[in-house]
Amino acid sequence: MSEAYDRLAARFHRLAVLGEAEGLLWWDAAAMMPPGGGPARGDQLAVLAGLAHEILTAPELAADLAEAEAAGPDADPWRAANLRLMRHAARRARAVPGALVEAVARANSACEKTWREARERADYAAVLPSFTEVVRLAREQARALGAALGLGPYDALMDGFQPGIKAADVEPVFARYERFLARALPEAEARAAIPARPQSPAGSFPVAVQEAFCRRLIERAGLSFAQARLDRSTHPFCGGNPTDIRITTRYDEKDALRAVFAVLHETGHALYERGLPAAWARQPVGAAAGMAAHESQSLIVEMQACRTDAFLGWLGGELSRVFAPDPAFGADNLGRLCRRVERGFIRVDADELTYPAHVILRFRLERALIEGGLEPPDLPAAWNAGIEALLGIVPPDDGLGCLQDIHWYDGSFGYFPSYSLGAMAAAQFMETARAALPGLEMALGEGDLSPLTGWLAGHVHAKGSLFDYNGLLREVTGRPLDPAAFEAHLTRRYLS
Amino acid sequence: MSEAYDRLAARFHRLAVLGEAEGLLWWDAAAMMPPGGGPARGDQLAVLAGLAHEILTAPELAADLAEAEAAGPDADPWRAANLRLMRHAARRARAVPGALVEAVARANSACEKTWREARERADYAAVLPSFTEVVRLAREQARALGAALGLGPYDALMDGFQPGIKAADVEPVFARYERFLARALPEAEARAAIPARPQSPAGSFPVAVQEAFCRRLIERAGLSFAQARLDRSTHPFCGGNPTDIRITTRYDEKDALRAVFAVLHETGHALYERGLPAAWARQPVGAAAGMAAHESQSLIVEMQACRTDAFLGWLGGELSRVFAPDPAFGADNLGRLCRRVERGFIRVDADELTYPAHVILRFRLERALIEGGLEPPDLPAAWNAGIEALLGIVPPDDGLGCLQDIHWYDGSFGYFPSYSLGAMAAAQFMETARAALPGLEMALGEGDLSPLTGWLAGHVHAKGSLFDYNGLLREVTGRPLDPAAFEAHLTRRYLS
Repeated sequence: MSEAYDRLAARFHRLAVLGEAEGLLWWDAAAMMPPGGGPARGDQLAVLAGLAHEILTAPELAADLAEAEAAGPDADPWRAANLRLMRHAARRARAVPGALVEAVARANSACEKTWREARERADYAAVLPSFTEVVRLAREQARALGAALGLGPYDALMDGFQPGIKAADVEPVFARYERFLARALPEAEARAAIPARPQSPAGSFPVAVQEAFCRRLIERAGLSFAQARLDRSTHPFCGGNPTDIRITTRYDEKDALRAVFAVLHETGHALYERGLPAAWARQPVGAAAGMAAHESQSLIVEMQACRTDAFLGWLGGELSRVFAPDPAFGADNLGRLCRRVERGFIRVDADELTYPAHVILRFRLERALIEGGLEPPDLPAAWNAGIEALLGIVPPDDGLGCLQDIHWYDGSFGYFPSYSLGAMAAAQFMETARAALPGLEMALGEGDLSPLTGWLAGHVHAKGSLFDYNGLLREVTGRPLDPAAFEAHLTRRYLS
Repeated sequence: MSEAYDRLAARFHRLAVLGEAEGLLWWDAAAMMPPGGGPARGDQLAVLAGLAHEILTAPELAADLAEAEAAGPDADPWRAANLRLMRHAARRARAVPGALVEAVARANSACEKTWREARERADYAAVLPSFTEVVRLAREQARALGAALGLGPYDALMDGFQPGIKAADVEPVFARYERFLARALPEAEARAAIPARPQSPAGSFPVAVQEAFCRRLIERAGLSFAQARLDRSTHPFCGGNPTDIRITTRYDEKDALRAVFAVLHETGHALYERGLPAAWARQPVGAAAGMAAHESQSLIVEMQACRTDAFLGWLGGELSRVFAPDPAFGADNLGRLCRRVERGFIRVDADELTYPAHVILRFRLERALIEGGLEPPDLPAAWNAGIEALLGIVPPDDGLGCLQDIHWYDGSFGYFPSYSLGAMAAAQFMETARAALPGLEMALGEGDLSPLTGWLAGHVHAKGSLFDYNGLLREVTGRPLDPAAFEAHLTRRYLS
């Protein structure tokens, strides 16, 4: 291809490497940094982000894009997709004026600080003034992005997290789930009560033992600690790059399962990053296909594979061996424990069945906040009405309601749908994987994830960003997102 | 001052913040990174260094420098020094053509890899071809830098580590030390043998207990772990920034003193960084005054203060309490143990008295390598002759000789003198501090470093880079480097 393309590839390689450095600074802030380092770290991240923005908006890059595109479509689909993604990234970066970028960063950072205290005191009024400014600027930013991308304002924000999916695609999928849930939830609750509530494993689970066990799980899943670390942070996450993966989790001495499933979830993310096409490393087309795609890879491990009877049977045996024999680790009890269904206020504690209700609520509210159908002062009432309609519960205060998540108050709008789009894609991928892997269930019963993760590596991870969300689903499963697979999975797991 | 100056200050602020990010990546590579992350980390560091170089060599920065200088000298000595240091940094950055910078980086990295194996096998011939290329390029770089700075080639390299000092200043100081050593070493050895060799503390010292004790030492010295971390790495070092200090050390289960003194040394570096003038943070004049100045601050803590009878008396009591009572921790034995004198081959294991001999040898050899008086094939013979002349010992192989240090093989020339210039400055600062602080010895006897570190904070740390090496010594002690202070210190400690 052209020299202009080669120059672009070098520029985007540099951007990706810069992004790796930025990722390390985030990881360190969450897992290592002493509290005093916060303000300096904020400056460091701002400088790196500013440099990346400068590279992406440089006139030379725009000229190279124009020249490379003028050569006509490339016969190699990877190069063609790479160029398309470069254009898209440049368009997003140039869409928002520098002054607005700065105003957004300042407003988000101020609001996030206020939110931390407001949440403690469940005091929405305290955060309302700064949140109103955040929403005002987010709307402005969304309009600017939308104009540049030919998208509606909310779609333009969603596109930043999961390219290839719009609110109009999501709304019918979520409406369908809402109907499914209205039927499935009471039934699942009725079944869960028979014969009795599951027992929680008794005792204190030393953190060092939990950590050693989590390390074994990570290694069994195919990651090597020659290319990975496991550390602790308040919120589990996975960062790093394919040769240097950073998984974090938190440990609860009273609950050994919490860290185990968090680590299995993050391991799914890690395997995706490690399995991305090496030939396209540090190029846009070599990156993960978006946040919903990423979430599908963590959830297919955590939820689809590791919460099966087969895997839980193996896991319970291991837990009894590592800690102490406990009937609560028995296959039947552990299965019921790990697949409890409960109407709760808090999204991050929600079960597989009710989780999408939390997402549906947030999707609708944030879309209305951005598109103007909802004003910040009206958020608490809209939240309470929405969660009541979906789950039949009303939070006693805003701390358990519209103040619970950091998203929005730190200026993140458009990310929430990715959680449930990921859960749905995971079910669809698993359906295809099961059909392709007759020995899967038996392997899971031996705690062996390799047939599944090997299949994912070849069918999903190796595709990078060659396809967008629906394109990837179509490529791997033969059809775009089909919520029927998720419903069928939930029906099998909770209603039969 | 002018708008041009303000723009410069913003550019250099950005450079300093970028440098902090780079520092974190180095810290992580040494203390945290899994081995597989090495190549990616190399790329990340190269991209950050490249971006910094671009900022520093941008035509806009050069124009601002010219405009700010055209306004005439600033009445504020800090601003004037800041502008001078900016000009100096820009001059250094612009001096070396980009192609040469890249060739140097490639050659250094290749040679360093070869050196690791060559040192294992004590095989100088194996590294000679790539080392010859490193020297060739270092000479070229030194000539280019020297031409831009109006310095000789070796002086131009020294200037990169310790501005304000030249080989011509160093040579007589080192020649004098050589004469002092020829007299002092046999005498110190004779005294050390009386009445008998000191006893080493017996037993195994659990790493966790050592680490907890080192943390206490760091806190006692005035650093807070709200703004610092202590971790492990192969070579102890101190990185980070004033609000987020990263100290590393290594632990030897057989030797509790090794980590203790390494941590005290790094704490001296940390206190310097923390004490730099906050009003000039992230500006050239707000940075440390060079590597010799830095080393003076680590050595005044480790060597001047913590190896006194007074401090060792306190330390021995603490060690007996933390580990187990041991007569070897007694004041007299501990003093003789921590102040052993030994003619050894390895610089990093050398005692206070013979350490400068190792540095003098390297200074002379690297100067000759850069200026052309010594060719790489002749290095081993020159090394062996030099160490024999200085210490009367000849290494049995090059692994214990000219292959022992990474410097040179990774392209670092001009740094070595800083170690001993720092030791000498430390003695000179200590002489002044003792005169100013009558209660110093008593405080040290209680393990209390605060009178000394408080004095250093005000007299040295707070000066930033307002003065160069000799300027700082003159400002604080009333005279430029005077090796008599170091000799007097050594005479008191080892010969009386």
